[in-house]
Parts: sequence; C-alpha cells; structure tokens
Amino acid sequence: MRLVTYRHGGRARTGAVVGGDRVLDLGRRPVVDLLADPAALDDARAAAAAAAPDDLPRLADVELLAPVTPGKILCLGYNYRGHVPAGADVRAADPPFPDVFVKTPNVLSAPTAPVRLPRVADDVDYEGEIALVVGRRAHDVPVETAMDHIAGYTLLNDVTDRAWQGRTSQWALGKCFDGFGPLGPAIVTPDEIADPHDLLLEVERDGVVTVSQSTSTMVFPMPFVVHYLSTVMTLEPGDVISTGTPQKLPAALAAHRPLTDGDAVTVRVAGIGELTTVFAAGPDTATDHHQTAAWEAHA
Amino acid sequence: MRLVTYRHGGRARTGAVVGGDRVLDLGRRPVVDLLADPAALDDARAAAAAAAPDDLPRLADVELLAPVTPGKILCLGYNYRGHVPAGADVRAADPPFPDVFVKTPNVLSAPTAPVRLPRVADDVDYEGEIALVVGRRAHDVPVETAMDHIAGYTLLNDVTDRAWQGRTSQWALGKCFDGFGPLGPAIVTPDEIADPHDLLLEVERDGVVTVSQSTSTMVFPMPFVVHYLSTVMTLEPGDVISTGTPQKLPAALAAHRPLTDGDAVTVRVAGIGELTTVFAAGPDTATDHHQTAAWEAHA
Repeated sequence: MRLVTYRHGGRARTGAVVGGDRVLDLGRRPVVDLLADPAALDDARAAAAAAAPDDLPRLADVELLAPVTPGKILCLGYNYRGHVPAGADVRAADPPFPDVFVKTPNVLSAPTAPVRLPRVADDVDYEGEIALVVGRRAHDVPVETAMDHIAGYTLLNDVTDRAWQGRTSQWALGKCFDGFGPLGPAIVTPDEIADPHDLLLEVERDGVVTVSQSTSTMVFPMPFVVHYLSTVMTLEPGDVISTGTPQKLPAALAAHRPLTDGDAVTVRVAGIGELTTVFAAGPDTATDHHQTAAWEAHA
Repeated sequence: MRLVTYRHGGRARTGAVVGGDRVLDLGRRPVVDLLADPAALDDARAAAAAAAPDDLPRLADVELLAPVTPGKILCLGYNYRGHVPAGADVRAADPPFPDVFVKTPNVLSAPTAPVRLPRVADDVDYEGEIALVVGRRAHDVPVETAMDHIAGYTLLNDVTDRAWQGRTSQWALGKCFDGFGPLGPAIVTPDEIADPHDLLLEVERDGVVTVSQSTSTMVFPMPFVVHYLSTVMTLEPGDVISTGTPQKLPAALAAHRPLTDGDAVTVRVAGIGELTTVFAAGPDTATDHHQTAAWEAHA
C-alpha cells in the first residue's frame, strides 16, 4: 500500500493511492498512527482494494503534504560505493562507520512544494535519497529484527548548500535551511518492495539523468543502519532515516552548477515513486515548513 | 523571573521560583507560551511578588522537568577563545564561522534526572553551556534586534561520547545518545541578567572545578549567533541555542577520564543557576527522554 497525507478543507487527511493516480480518503488519523496499527492497516488495504478508482479524486488534484512529520530526520553521508568527495579525484574507501548528521524539522517540505533558494546561499545542490520511515519504537534492536521497526519507504531530497556545508567541520547549517527536505510523495509499505537492496535510484535535473546507481552498492545496508542508530537513540514512529545519495554521474559532476530559479530535480525509484522539486528564488514561496501546525490539527 | 516546569499529579505544570527555593504554581500553560505573552508574564511576575514563600512547596520537593521541550536543539562548537581541540597542544585560532551541530529531541533530560551511560559508549564526557531559549519566531533577523527573540537563559550539559564523536566527520551520534542533554533547571528572563557576556561559567566534576571561564571570551556573541542561525532556519518558540563550552582547565584536561557510574557534574552560572547531573550505569535509569508525552498532556 502507498499512503499519502494531503490537505483538504484546511486540515491534513490520510489517503491511500488507488489505481496509481487516485486517492482514497482514509480519514484524519495520521499515517504514522495507521502504520503502527496492523488491524487498521488491513482495513485500509481492504478499503483500497474495494474502491472504484474512477470515483476518487486524482492525486494530481489534491495538495500533498509530507507523508509524516518526523521528530528526527537522520541522514547518512558517504553511504554508496564510489562516492567521490568534492575536490577529490579518486574514489574514497568505504568508511568504517556510518557518518550520520541531522536535519532539523524546519527543512520539511511537502512533496510538490517549491523549495525557496535562501537569500544568503548561492551554492545549492540536491541529493536524491531513499528514506526509511520508522513505524515502531526501536531502542538497541539487533540487525536481524531491525527492519520490523520500519513501516515503509519514501524519498527525500537532501537539499544542501555546498558553501555553507563546507564552512565549518559540521555540515548542519548547509543542510538545515528552511524547506531543504522535500519528503514523499507516498510511504510505500515493505510488502511492495521485493528487495530494498536491488533498486535503481535515479535523479534527473532539468530533464538530464545525473544520478543512476543501484542500492546494491550501499556501504551500510538498511538493517545495519537501523540497528546501529538504535544503539544510540530511541527511534520513534515517524522518524525518518535517509540512506544517503550515490555520487553524480561523471558528466553531471563535470557540468554541475548550483541550482537556480526554476530548476527542477526529480528523485525516482521504481516501486517507491517520484519526488519532483522545483527551486524558486525569492523569500516567500510556499515551502511548507509550517506543516507542523497543520499536522497538529490532524490528530 | 525564573520559570520551571515540574510534574504534579502525572502532568506537567509551570511554576515561578519564589524566594530562591520555593515554587509558585502558575498553572498548566507551558512555559514557552507564557514567555511569548508579555501580559501573562506580567501577571505571573505580580503573582510571584505577592506570594508568601513559606506557604509554597520547596523546589527540592517537586519533580522538575526540562523547562521547555525544544523542537530544535542547536549547539555551537569552538565558541570560547582558548579552546584546545583534543590531541592539539596549541590554542586554535578563532574559527571564521560558528560551527553548528544539532542534538536530537531524544537527548532531553530533566534537570535532576540521572543520565544513563549507554551500553555501547565508554568515553562519555560533559560540556557545560549557557543555552538561549527562543521566545518569538525569528527568521532572517538583524543582529541589532536578534535578542528580542530570546525569552531567557538556561543551562545545558552537552553530554558527548568522545569516541563516537570522533568516529566519523560528523559529531551527531556522539552527541545524540538518549538523555545526553540535561536542560535547566529554570529559564531566567533577560531582565535578570545585566550583561550575558560578563558571566562566569563554571563546571565542577565530583567536587573539583574543571571549567572556569567568562562569557566575555566567547568568539561569536549571542546576538550574532541568533542572527546568523536565523538567516538559515526559522527559529521557533522553545527552540534552544546552546552557546558552546569553554575548554577544561589544564589540570582537569590532564586528569580527564571518562564519566562512570556515580560521577556528578555541575554546571554553574551565577544568576542563571546550577545544573547537576549524576551519571549512572545500567539500561533503565530515569532519563526523561519520554518527556514529550508528559508535555503534550500539559497543553
């Protein structure tokens, strides 16, 4: 099943994607609650199977919100083999440990909202990533059962200003501009993904494929990442773990220029979905970093 | 005024510290709401002035919670002159930009709760810091008015596992173990602090002073930090900005050993307060990282 959050009548609602492009209203219970409740999830599945797509609104006609409002957004650096650090001309060796950083809640953007290019940042770049959504609390869980705590898969664009990222030892500010985390469009439950380590992750910028690499080249596989993080921090339902970006293709690396007004970036993984983000100049475009307020009205 | 959050009858309540060691019940409106409402704050001040301390419960007899539940905990590295990076034997030059990292919400500990030493970490250290609490939303605010968005001062122990901090380029995991952010005990409103850049910050470990340095040696003063962060991210009421730790005194650096079961660390700033944290072995001591649930019952 594919679950979305959308705004209707000023409030957030949960929906199931039916027939590929239609949305079935599942009510106001947040996606993250539903994902933690197997019986409710079965009911939703049955309702989706019984629904007549033609009677439902089109997904394209509803205002999607980020599918969850994470308490924590944990991101991995250097988690695909062959990642070339900026400025280096040889491939880096596998890192010995996952390199983890945090994106703050203000980065959250709805999946179709434009991302504002900040006044103070002019070296904005994209990173297309597969994100895991925590469904059940996880504290110090073994690798073998770690994925039982994951409710589904979605996509994150880990938008980053490279100049701010490189100003200091810690990347946080380059990663944490308002709206720098488009998430979605849907959460795909694990039963729909035969092997999460055999997925082609592609990124397209303004119509050109700039990233194309299989999750089989991940350095730290997903169950290990969930286990490892859970030895440090209690993972809560709705938390997002973004599993890192592959490097850009050589031609894209060579041709790279910072994102500017009107550029569009699509993150695409067959089976998970497509997340297209338009970047926009100016201070007041609709990044949805106030989504939390809408979300609170949801419960 | 000094504001605290405490648990009574299973729910969070807001209190004012009266007569130094007593607490006046201000009801169930969260501290962060009160701080954003000048009229309510005036009423609270008047009630505190009129209260007879002897009739009030002792602060020592109530169960304090962290005074706010921040959406973001932003921390500065290298923000005092004379900071010696681990392994270096010369003083570092002033950094050109604030080096900022993020602590996740699970680090939050009540001011009197013990902090659990994690199963997987055995190089745990303390960092005593002055923390600013955001009172009013701040987005791209100038230096001159930045402090108008700060509702008060409190203390944070930026507990850190040095081995985990140093494993990778990003410090996040060493900083983000459950409970690694004791906060409090009170939020002190700015009218009580004549000059925040003329305060002596002291840390005492097991009765020995290990840090003693004035905020006059801060590299980036507080108004600049608030301004700078606000150019990147919208700061929301309740967000915490921790302004960094001075280096340990030479004797304390030389004698340093990781924290173990029963060690106590006190962060002390005259005018702001004292935050004492006991470190405890074992998986199930009462770090209060589930405070959010209690907090939600508060509103």
